[in-house]
Amino acid sequence: MTDVAQDPDRSAGALYRQVAADLREAITSGSYGESGRLPAEGALAEQYGVSRGTVRQALAVLRADGLVTSRRGTRRVVLGNARVQSFSELLSFTHWARSMGEEPGGILESLVRRPADAAEREQLRLEPGTEVYVTLRLRTLSGTPVMVERTVYPPRVGELVAQLPPDVVSHTEPLREHGILFTDADHTIDVVAANADDARLLGCRRGSPLLRERRRTTDPTGTPVEWSQDRYLPGTVAFSIHNSLASSALSRHAREGD
Amino acid sequence: MTDVAQDPDRSAGALYRQVAADLREAITSGSYGESGRLPAEGALAEQYGVSRGTVRQALAVLRADGLVTSRRGTRRVVLGNARVQSFSELLSFTHWARSMGEEPGGILESLVRRPADAAEREQLRLEPGTEVYVTLRLRTLSGTPVMVERTVYPPRVGELVAQLPPDVVSHTEPLREHGILFTDADHTIDVVAANADDARLLGCRRGSPLLRERRRTTDPTGTPVEWSQDRYLPGTVAFSIHNSLASSALSRHAREGD
Repeated sequence: MTDVAQDPDRSAGALYRQVAADLREAITSGSYGESGRLPAEGALAEQYGVSRGTVRQALAVLRADGLVTSRRGTRRVVLGNARVQSFSELLSFTHWARSMGEEPGGILESLVRRPADAAEREQLRLEPGTEVYVTLRLRTLSGTPVMVERTVYPPRVGELVAQLPPDVVSHTEPLREHGILFTDADHTIDVVAANADDARLLGCRRGSPLLRERRRTTDPTGTPVEWSQDRYLPGTVAFSIHNSLASSALSRHAREGD
Repeated sequence: MTDVAQDPDRSAGALYRQVAADLREAITSGSYGESGRLPAEGALAEQYGVSRGTVRQALAVLRADGLVTSRRGTRRVVLGNARVQSFSELLSFTHWARSMGEEPGGILESLVRRPADAAEREQLRLEPGTEVYVTLRLRTLSGTPVMVERTVYPPRVGELVAQLPPDVVSHTEPLREHGILFTDADHTIDVVAANADDARLLGCRRGSPLLRERRRTTDPTGTPVEWSQDRYLPGTVAFSIHNSLASSALSRHAREGD
């Protein structure tokens, strides 16, 4: 860890930001993953050679970014204890949570029925003028907010979702009982800035980074059943994937190696 | 887009941060992806109902985060034109870049030989005391910095890497000629804060978010050949993955549906 006090471009105003950046890096790289708690403020002040006030300012920044909780006793709980979500098979949030022994939660913020826009029609293969159902949900792990889920459903699926209780944890399980199966998905993963809804629901700052997973899911006949985007607080999840060199490339290598 | 001027909690100091957050969201959601340029400062000032000075402050924040370039004429070039990198097969950065018609670049910042630490020994399956070769490289697409790559090589691979010219674009291609094949990889994707090296090489702010991809790659015999982590500027890449419901789960669903 950098000795902040010796940084040549230090200035009073920038000091807490440097401490925040160092702590952020330590948290997201998993340094506090095992204990799940930061050292006490006094210990951090000593470690960085700064005042406790500077440490508090730095912690306020991390709190606003959703990386640590509010104070409990003299130490902060680190949220940066990322749990791996494998893409080896398609798994709902509910199943993923339960596979880790966590209690999944879902709180419906809004459900809107409106005409699909051009991007939604393309993703869900709908005729112009078709109405979609759009849900905004906060997802929790054992009570802690970790993700905001926005899902666009085609009419035949959305009509069923609209009849579910607002606090139902899983949408896919009751849908399955109605014969709607989520079997294949194309995912895209990137980083996105929190908007006002994300910030309010996740307790982070507007503009702070979120890990985004977008997916288009189809049923066994290849018909789209949802177009969804999930936004995770940093440090709450890491996605894992296995892949291989294309067999065509491998045989090309073998030939060239001859 | 939010009308910032009507935001009830606006204050002079927070205004530019709100504009920055809005622009950040628009950029990372791809709103400027097609044109590749932001509107002129005057147009942005009018759009948000703020002064040009406030717009300039907001753009300075985005510049420091690596989301837009420095000024060219009156408009900024948006870097948030994410290019999708598919995980359907294992592809080197060099091959990915060329598949998009971009010119890949690699600048070696450092190459260090040192004893492997515990995590590296576990990942690369090495005996205690074994030395590894660690490279730090800046990767570019058509001259623009997009990613910092840190790779740990086991001795038999690292010895070959150490003999490559420092500006060689691809490591995997010359290694293949020596019979070292990169055929299978396990990847983990999450968000990490830029450290001092990342900030210097990518021109972003320390602590700003980067999309991280870690991977452990093996050869056809299952022997590890690298343990690497790549850190991408937001907006430069999105990872895509396809997966399916486990067949066991599908047959369970079918049974329960009976």
